[in-house]
Amino acid sequence: MTYNIAILGASGYTGAELIRLIAGHSSMTIKSLGGNSKAGQSMASVFPHLRHLDLPDLVTMEEIDFSQIDLCFCALPHKTSQEVIAQLPKDLKIVDLSADFRLRDPEEYQRWYGNPHAALEQQAEAVYGLSEFYRTEIKAARLVAGTGCNAATGQFALRPLISAGLIDLDDIILDLKCAVSGAGRALKENLLHAELSEGYHAYALGSTHRHLGEFDQEFSALAGRPVKVQFTPHLVPANRGILATCYVKGDPQAMHAALEAAYADEPFIVVLPYGEAPSTRHIRGSNFCHIGVSGDRTSGRATVIAALDNLTKGSSGQALQNANLMLGIDETEGLMMAPLFP
Amino acid sequence: MTYNIAILGASGYTGAELIRLIAGHSSMTIKSLGGNSKAGQSMASVFPHLRHLDLPDLVTMEEIDFSQIDLCFCALPHKTSQEVIAQLPKDLKIVDLSADFRLRDPEEYQRWYGNPHAALEQQAEAVYGLSEFYRTEIKAARLVAGTGCNAATGQFALRPLISAGLIDLDDIILDLKCAVSGAGRALKENLLHAELSEGYHAYALGSTHRHLGEFDQEFSALAGRPVKVQFTPHLVPANRGILATCYVKGDPQAMHAALEAAYADEPFIVVLPYGEAPSTRHIRGSNFCHIGVSGDRTSGRATVIAALDNLTKGSSGQALQNANLMLGIDETEGLMMAPLFP
Amino acid sequence: MTYNIAILGASGYTGAELIRLIAGHSSMTIKSLGGNSKAGQSMASVFPHLRHLDLPDLVTMEEIDFSQIDLCFCALPHKTSQEVIAQLPKDLKIVDLSADFRLRDPEEYQRWYGNPHAALEQQAEAVYGLSEFYRTEIKAARLVAGTGCNAATGQFALRPLISAGLIDLDDIILDLKCAVSGAGRALKENLLHAELSEGYHAYALGSTHRHLGEFDQEFSALAGRPVKVQFTPHLVPANRGILATCYVKGDPQAMHAALEAAYADEPFIVVLPYGEAPSTRHIRGSNFCHIGVSGDRTSGRATVIAALDNLTKGSSGQALQNANLMLGIDETEGLMMAPLFP
Amino acid sequence: MTYNIAILGASGYTGAELIRLIAGHSSMTIKSLGGNSKAGQSMASVFPHLRHLDLPDLVTMEEIDFSQIDLCFCALPHKTSQEVIAQLPKDLKIVDLSADFRLRDPEEYQRWYGNPHAALEQQAEAVYGLSEFYRTEIKAARLVAGTGCNAATGQFALRPLISAGLIDLDDIILDLKCAVSGAGRALKENLLHAELSEGYHAYALGSTHRHLGEFDQEFSALAGRPVKVQFTPHLVPANRGILATCYVKGDPQAMHAALEAAYADEPFIVVLPYGEAPSTRHIRGSNFCHIGVSGDRTSGRATVIAALDNLTKGSSGQALQNANLMLGIDETEGLMMAPLFP
Repeated sequence: MTYNIAILGASGYTGAELIRLIAGHSSMTIKSLGGNSKAGQSMASVFPHLRHLDLPDLVTMEEIDFSQIDLCFCALPHKTSQEVIAQLPKDLKIVDLSADFRLRDPEEYQRWYGNPHAALEQQAEAVYGLSEFYRTEIKAARLVAGTGCNAATGQFALRPLISAGLIDLDDIILDLKCAVSGAGRALKENLLHAELSEGYHAYALGSTHRHLGEFDQEFSALAGRPVKVQFTPHLVPANRGILATCYVKGDPQAMHAALEAAYADEPFIVVLPYGEAPSTRHIRGSNFCHIGVSGDRTSGRATVIAALDNLTKGSSGQALQNANLMLGIDETEGLMMAPLFP
Repeated sequence: MTYNIAILGASGYTGAELIRLIAGHSSMTIKSLGGNSKAGQSMASVFPHLRHLDLPDLVTMEEIDFSQIDLCFCALPHKTSQEVIAQLPKDLKIVDLSADFRLRDPEEYQRWYGNPHAALEQQAEAVYGLSEFYRTEIKAARLVAGTGCNAATGQFALRPLISAGLIDLDDIILDLKCAVSGAGRALKENLLHAELSEGYHAYALGSTHRHLGEFDQEFSALAGRPVKVQFTPHLVPANRGILATCYVKGDPQAMHAALEAAYADEPFIVVLPYGEAPSTRHIRGSNFCHIGVSGDRTSGRATVIAALDNLTKGSSGQALQNANLMLGIDETEGLMMAPLFP
Repeated sequence: MTYNIAILGASGYTGAELIRLIAGHSSMTIKSLGGNSKAGQSMASVFPHLRHLDLPDLVTMEEIDFSQIDLCFCALPHKTSQEVIAQLPKDLKIVDLSADFRLRDPEEYQRWYGNPHAALEQQAEAVYGLSEFYRTEIKAARLVAGTGCNAATGQFALRPLISAGLIDLDDIILDLKCAVSGAGRALKENLLHAELSEGYHAYALGSTHRHLGEFDQEFSALAGRPVKVQFTPHLVPANRGILATCYVKGDPQAMHAALEAAYADEPFIVVLPYGEAPSTRHIRGSNFCHIGVSGDRTSGRATVIAALDNLTKGSSGQALQNANLMLGIDETEGLMMAPLFP
Repeated sequence: MTYNIAILGASGYTGAELIRLIAGHSSMTIKSLGGNSKAGQSMASVFPHLRHLDLPDLVTMEEIDFSQIDLCFCALPHKTSQEVIAQLPKDLKIVDLSADFRLRDPEEYQRWYGNPHAALEQQAEAVYGLSEFYRTEIKAARLVAGTGCNAATGQFALRPLISAGLIDLDDIILDLKCAVSGAGRALKENLLHAELSEGYHAYALGSTHRHLGEFDQEFSALAGRPVKVQFTPHLVPANRGILATCYVKGDPQAMHAALEAAYADEPFIVVLPYGEAPSTRHIRGSNFCHIGVSGDRTSGRATVIAALDNLTKGSSGQALQNANLMLGIDETEGLMMAPLFP
């Protein structure tokens, strides 16, 4: 069987990444590509690296016949996404890659994003799309909310440790090193090659990054009490990859054992031998996440480091993994390609 | 049916690229990985980006039981390759990625490479592995010689033009911009990140690059007379990609038409609309080659520009394409992945 | 004696580069910095790398008292520059870095830039600012027009050869590899790090780049007959540097001798030993230009390769060199810093 | 007056950086360049970016007449440096850039570096070369030990806070992002462009990096009790720059005030306005260090971030600053050049 797929927001990086992945999927066909600002253009002109594929031209959302679509990916900016999804058919399966449906509490949403939520009905039914931890709910869901790419990385490193009560919940520090494609194809001065390519810096200082809403929600739920991590992202001169260095307190060997146990059967999460360090270059372009644990010279301290590709496991790969679950397809279909190195 | 594959020289970049591609191939299994200098090591330690694959450890060539192997890729350094292949079973199908079997004339080989050829018998039977132009011969071959990555790029741009008599054979200039992975994983000062990453330069000045042996052999055969191109490669700070800017004289529109006709049925060669420029970023990690033709303001002059990924279409992808032909598998199997962008 | 300097367009890359250079100049003081779009901001906020300097805030042009200014650099976009300069005091010494005063023939200007010139009076008095070849005129000039960065690179390689009648004037090919800062701080999709950093491509195909107006004007004047070069620029993933690979016909050894003679007394132009190749990494951040000559295996053919930093010798360094000449200061003052490597 | 300078180890990156800086120094002349492995070669061949300078050829140490030398920089590998310095004239002023004389306690040296110290006499007289904090001792010193580049960065961020008793001494985390030139010009696989340029990773996990010896020595001395920081360096794809993100506990505003007070009169240390983040791109190629302080959403927590250029302020710039102090020259001489951006 072949499922008909629509992608809204196909002119951005996560949209292009979805197309790259679906092109290698055995049972999905791309039927419609929405992209209002570039409607009427061919994908060959918007993303020349996809020109070998037989793809429909970009159209406006209004031109799409959703009755023919089995599943729709929304790769739109936040705020836009909630407005669009509120208007889509109520029985259409949707994987949303924006930030709009990640937070369950509308007040938390408004606090982090600054505006009241415009699609509360859909928000209420949305399932948080961290595939490895919400698999049952995702299989049954109509609307799945893709996680933040930073939020996914940190959670892969820390969820099993929090669940197992292995780390001090009041002293969790996440130092993230993020590649530039996470900021999208936006025309911003600080994303220019000349500005970015030879330096690096922290941003969203003081734990003000919006992905903290997800960390707070998920870690607190796991712990059964409020957990507020300290989180500082850094922008580094590379296109793909997030490296999350987590500083935590507890028994490093027990942490490693807990992570190995938690991910023993997971096809995409690889726990490295104790003491080894993951690298973004070894997961680039793939759906894999590598995790390493090391003890510090000071006993009772550890670093847990996770690496994934923000465009793949951090967004579009996760989205496809969730779509597979929703459609009853093998979860790994279209996602087992090896990383590209060098 | 599944074919058993061996790769000699699996600890280099072209070896790793072969593994990446074969991991997505429906009817090949990697049975043995040879790598003398790193024999005994796991591929996860040599190339951590491949650690999710269930691969055999590296062994010495002597440890491989070639009677179980249907096809062997040799990704060894030149000179080593000819010595090794001379000792392999005479009926083993081989795709060689080195320079050792590309030149038909042993004297030309010695002139460009400096040493007498040590496997003349095998050299005599080798077929030049430019898939699109030697398809029939490759299907029937036991030993196929992969082309130089620069040589492949220039030939895709120019062969149809020479065959059709469309360009001045005495005035062909190839200005190539080559990424660094073409130089392999060798420990050379000029390949260090600190040396290379912020500058670019020409090398092998004066048309002294060894791939000229291939250009001379192939272009002269096509033209039925000696053709000696002027060829200057440049090293640019990127890991994958060759961009060949060819300066030729003739009718640009006729050139474009000839290229379109020549490649109309080719799955991997894409001729862009007249006047468009290919970019290495749009073929990275894929087996595609993009070609663009533009006329100059001075009539009778043109640029023909070809872009491909040196590790894929320029070596390991070409090698797999040839192996598919030799084994009677669909030529595109394992090779249709989209480029990785960004 | 100290000269008071104004810079208009100080919020762009060439403006910042002027400030960097003048900060090390013994007899210039920056009195006013114009930048209409960012007027009112401090330089520390616009260019944090200059925050250690005691600089005036950005102001609008109207706020500058030009009676206090000894020399004004205009680092404005073309078209804007001519409108601004037409309104500046008629006796103010000006070094313009835009394209507006480079072409002597107003019709040629209109043909290449698309609009009639709006400051014909100033255009008539402007001196072409290629310091090494217009030194006498620059010393006496009120208004000097900085050259195009590509135009400067090609001219350093070829002017002495054309003057000496050493090369075939009907067969000159310039293949340029240009870093991204030459495109300025403009918000364009193709200048984003994610778009640019891992690929390279040709642009302005067919000899349509505007710097050809300068090549035509200068080379034809030197030769005493029309000379129309074929010129293809390529954008490579680096921030600074132009490498011009010039394919010419003639006697390579004679070319090398002519270049050595022409530049024997020049402080900034270095002719490498015969057969060596210059690299952009060896002139980065400096005012030096390195030139290399090599013969081809086909006799009567040569490559002449020039490398310079587009922001320094290609624009702001050249501008300061010209300002030194105009003010009677030693020509090398503020310009002898070594390149930054690595 | 002009001082005669010798540099031992002139064929490495810190040697080249010393030459770059001294070329712009008003009262130093480079008299001898030692480089045993490349003795006999010209600097133009070893470092072509320095070819415009009139430099002596590389010689062996034995060929240098130290009686003519006023001050000698040793930019040799550690272990080699102590052996060489033990043999140099006992009254020769020396600035050593290696790790050999940084630790005062020979046992600590042996613990971190694995070998007994071979020049205990010199070690006893060496002064720790963190210019801003050992100025008086450096002025009077014969032998100054340059600090580790990571150690300098972390100390600039934290020394005033420890001195003032403003942070919890038992909970200091340093997450460093380091550019590749810090690893020198060594031929190591992980320093190749193809390996490094598109990824990043942590190394020296578990607080095992040798620069911890310096942190322990200095911070403990300041605090009057043992202080053991947790320190994890990361290698990022850039050539120059260290960004130290320090996670500390205390009052962020008080920290900012203490840093501002401590560095109020320092020419090279810039404390940014509260809440701003420094970037390595804004100090590249310069002797400046930028420091930013931010409070976290959790009160009592802060990030203190310092950025400097590892080759300049982190080693060769610091060395020249110390040499200026030792020779009674203005401390900033030759060091006020602006950063290179972009």
